[in-house]
Amino acid sequence: MLLLSNQDVEAALTIEDCIAAMDDGYRELGQSRGASGVRSEILSPTTRDDGLYSLLTMSGVAPKSGIGAVRINSDILTWPRTSQGIKRVKVPAAPGARYVGLVLLFSVETGEPLAIYPDGVVQRLRVAATCGLAAKYLARTDARVVGLLGTGWQAGGQAAAIAAVRPITQIRCYSPDPARCQAFARETADRLGIDVIAAGSAREAVARADVVMCATSSMQPVLSADWIAPGMHVSSLKRLELDASVATKSDIVITHVRKAAAQIARTAGADLARDTEHRKDALSKALKQDELPDLADLLLNRTGGRRSNNDVTLFLNYMGLGYQFAVTGHVLLQRARERGIGRQLDSDWFTSEVPS
Amino acid sequence: MLLLSNQDVEAALTIEDCIAAMDDGYRELGQSRGASGVRSEILSPTTRDDGLYSLLTMSGVAPKSGIGAVRINSDILTWPRTSQGIKRVKVPAAPGARYVGLVLLFSVETGEPLAIYPDGVVQRLRVAATCGLAAKYLARTDARVVGLLGTGWQAGGQAAAIAAVRPITQIRCYSPDPARCQAFARETADRLGIDVIAAGSAREAVARADVVMCATSSMQPVLSADWIAPGMHVSSLKRLELDASVATKSDIVITHVRKAAAQIARTAGADLARDTEHRKDALSKALKQDELPDLADLLLNRTGGRRSNNDVTLFLNYMGLGYQFAVTGHVLLQRARERGIGRQLDSDWFTSEVPS
Repeated sequence: MLLLSNQDVEAALTIEDCIAAMDDGYRELGQSRGASGVRSEILSPTTRDDGLYSLLTMSGVAPKSGIGAVRINSDILTWPRTSQGIKRVKVPAAPGARYVGLVLLFSVETGEPLAIYPDGVVQRLRVAATCGLAAKYLARTDARVVGLLGTGWQAGGQAAAIAAVRPITQIRCYSPDPARCQAFARETADRLGIDVIAAGSAREAVARADVVMCATSSMQPVLSADWIAPGMHVSSLKRLELDASVATKSDIVITHVRKAAAQIARTAGADLARDTEHRKDALSKALKQDELPDLADLLLNRTGGRRSNNDVTLFLNYMGLGYQFAVTGHVLLQRARERGIGRQLDSDWFTSEVPS
Repeated sequence: MLLLSNQDVEAALTIEDCIAAMDDGYRELGQSRGASGVRSEILSPTTRDDGLYSLLTMSGVAPKSGIGAVRINSDILTWPRTSQGIKRVKVPAAPGARYVGLVLLFSVETGEPLAIYPDGVVQRLRVAATCGLAAKYLARTDARVVGLLGTGWQAGGQAAAIAAVRPITQIRCYSPDPARCQAFARETADRLGIDVIAAGSAREAVARADVVMCATSSMQPVLSADWIAPGMHVSSLKRLELDASVATKSDIVITHVRKAAAQIARTAGADLARDTEHRKDALSKALKQDELPDLADLLLNRTGGRRSNNDVTLFLNYMGLGYQFAVTGHVLLQRARERGIGRQLDSDWFTSEVPS
């Protein structure tokens, strides 16, 4: 059993590997040879008045890779009001101001646990790789300029993902915090070796972009439908950041996954999240998400993609899948083993001589 | 973060502690102050022709105890035909012929991981404690003789549980394997210090019993409705082991949990389990399980229990809950800490400096 840190995952796993693994994986998923379990979340009061405890699990099995994966998040969540609206914020409440998210990998052949690692780095990679994969099949092949809304943890992944699938020469990023925006531009330019400009407004970031990537934690729309120009490819990570009319301005709309089972259980008193969830549900309904073709349909040619350089394409990456952790886990395990990364734990600690 | 083995769990946790914790816990659950997540199972082909890979997760939060729990089972399952019918059998396919089931505990206050341990011993205890708790409130207070059908791993737990809540003087056990039955009788008599007799037939084990506990892995009925006598308390762990007409012969029928969310996802080719699942569903329907009062109703006096020494009472313990792992996990953690049991792992291995 391999124990990996976030640093280990970062060292072992590239965005290119993840996109290639997903490119294969979504075909297996679309043919029902791979599967995700139900995404289950429990929300419960904790000692904080302004927060809830959230216990989230998701799982997936990729038989071709021989991997089953479970992801667990154990979080303190808050919904502070900011000048940009209400945000959902995870509080690093574990000792040492740390977050708690874990991925466990298992063997489909023997059941044995193969690896355990924090989900931080791989979470960013799987979200980014999914948007990268969608852009690979939807964006104009000559796309060169990216408008990136958001400059947080996920935004960095999005920048790397689009640069991996298109000949990007410039990224124009925007955040309401100018200092943060400048810093992100510098870091990203250094990391990817391309021109990154801190734009003065969201509109300025989007203007003349071939690809627009929304990667904010905003609970208010950040992208106006008026800014959409012919030929653009747009992607979004959070329902609330997108003005639903962007979809009506799009020629092709692809959702990450058409039907994904998810259930939230709430204990008495756990009502803080209700408002934002109602708004998300209303948006999903407005977007008719359950009827849209999804990424697997696109890869398996069950739905058409971009028809011309003038089509506007939109990718909605809203519901994560446990299956993504099985697919990325498989390639991570391969790379870590090849390069001797990680710490070995005694497998017997995590297996049992008696059945259950 | 505490790492416990099955031996550690066995040393730290008693059936009495578990029943007491559950007695408290089901009240919290019934008042919606505690919650379980969805039970999610993925069934997928593996390299064995006669088996499937199963990845099962369940979760629960007990706010009063401050514990969130996730249980994971990663199993190779087979459905061999035996002389007693088709059985569902877990294969110990992990290295060293071991099984893979894990419980992880988290803090509701900080999110941090608190413990990880195999689920074998605690699984038996939580099932046994639930039946013990039901018997505490349903069986005749003067119950002395137990008919125990099944002599496997769960049957041992059932024997201990009933002995913890009633002045039991004799257990009459039955298994179709006489040698196994004799051995179980000896072991159980030694362990509990009461008279345990290996009966020659199921009917003989049940005759003159005050409490009848079914704890088999049979996929055919093992208890006939004709054998039910006035005053008996009956419990069952598996839908298929019970003739549904036992319910019609019962005055009071209590189900473990009226509505529990569960979902099975199957990948292409994963059909081996379908038959037995259809039969289980049909039985649940015949028993009208969704309309029955449940254990929390009984404890909270929302439904009536036994009215006289002649009532036949029946407890159906068919659907496990993640919540049970939170409640038993809480008392296990207390006892292990009090007694210095287990191995400390570095918490930082399982937490993260970045959000996800």
